[in-house]
Amino acid sequence: MTYCVALALEKWLVFASDTRTNAGVDYVTKVRKLHVFKPAADRLFVILTAGNLATTQEILNVVERDLREKKAKNSLLKCKYMFEAADYLGHVSVDVQKSHYKALQQSGVDGSATLIIGGQIGKEPPALFHVYPQGNTISATPDTPFFQIGESKYGKPIIDRLVKMDMPLGDAARLVLASLDATIKSNATVAPPYDLAVYPISSFDLSVDSRIEIDSEFYQNFKTTWQSGMQHAFDNLPKFDWEG
Amino acid sequence: MTYCVALALEKWLVFASDTRTNAGVDYVTKVRKLHVFKPAADRLFVILTAGNLATTQEILNVVERDLREKKAKNSLLKCKYMFEAADYLGHVSVDVQKSHYKALQQSGVDGSATLIIGGQIGKEPPALFHVYPQGNTISATPDTPFFQIGESKYGKPIIDRLVKMDMPLGDAARLVLASLDATIKSNATVAPPYDLAVYPISSFDLSVDSRIEIDSEFYQNFKTTWQSGMQHAFDNLPKFDWEG
Repeated sequence: MTYCVALALEKWLVFASDTRTNAGVDYVTKVRKLHVFKPAADRLFVILTAGNLATTQEILNVVERDLREKKAKNSLLKCKYMFEAADYLGHVSVDVQKSHYKALQQSGVDGSATLIIGGQIGKEPPALFHVYPQGNTISATPDTPFFQIGESKYGKPIIDRLVKMDMPLGDAARLVLASLDATIKSNATVAPPYDLAVYPISSFDLSVDSRIEIDSEFYQNFKTTWQSGMQHAFDNLPKFDWEG
Repeated sequence: MTYCVALALEKWLVFASDTRTNAGVDYVTKVRKLHVFKPAADRLFVILTAGNLATTQEILNVVERDLREKKAKNSLLKCKYMFEAADYLGHVSVDVQKSHYKALQQSGVDGSATLIIGGQIGKEPPALFHVYPQGNTISATPDTPFFQIGESKYGKPIIDRLVKMDMPLGDAARLVLASLDATIKSNATVAPPYDLAVYPISSFDLSVDSRIEIDSEFYQNFKTTWQSGMQHAFDNLPKFDWEG
């Protein structure tokens, strides 16, 4: 399983993912699920991937090939609008899934993939899209400025509770970390290290592109502070009238 | 949908549930999912129900009938051990599901039910069981002293984080409320009011059996304090090295 999350805020797009992948319970490994594409000086995309690893890797390979082959019908370089980039990614995803569907179905394997793509093209506004396995897409809006894919439920309440369109960059990055931390507490198929990327709008560059290791001083400090802060908040909750 | 949660702690069993039920999105109503059975002075059971409402209501009716009809092969009065009570409930559940399976399957309706039963019989130790739709059961242990049924993922991280076998009664009750509060923040099919029951071990009586309304002063205070406490904990998280 996987957990990826992205925020589309006033001044930043923020992306984060875990790195756990497993085939059954015996083969548990680490894989990158946060992928950056910068095919020209005035365009940048981040793609987060969840689902069947063979499918998501092939999708990324096709996206890469389409950038390199001039005869490609479409690519992240040829799209003029972000919704076209999301739609292109959806079509690549569906094509890859279709090419393996029969064989996978016969083996009872789910070959589907769910993706998030965010970024910006030239003078167009930045955007963040959720790409369903069926290839259709929805975009984030100020009312709900985030998307999650994979094992998304555990880490949703903290985002619902604290996300704000105008939150400072550090807070936004801490919020996706807190969401990841809630998820790994409750689900063994999601695990650190985490990948974290921040795109300041209209910069066409990532200001943060880092891996956060579980045993790093920062993350240990983060975990301990968050746990004790939550305990403190809990200890301050009001008493029931039936308590002494 | 539904969210029910129960804790089996050193001195108490604690039970809580939401009350939202819906058939499609048009027919959203309120129903009790926390049911107390006290068939004799030395035995008490609490049953939490999730799944198809017709199924869970019929299960409860059969349990009630078995208590009243002397010729019943088994009942909550006849069981000598808690695992027998859980096993009995599992069999009732499977029988009810089986009796409607064919017709429901033809309509594409899921008639399954998942249950939690906790309580105590005479001098036997108290126990808490999760009853699967297939009728088999598992019991809570000190390593994982809680069960959740229904829409369980949103409210799991806070329990994983804060549950302790020796937590005071008020804290235990606040923990299940915090878990419910996280769930309703993120999922529209789970909603207040909540039912809350506390069984002090070997008392054979509930010390708390109350409904918590969303607009009660207590719950409004609880929600506000919890939200500001979480915000405060979040605001105190450590800075990234790339922050100023």
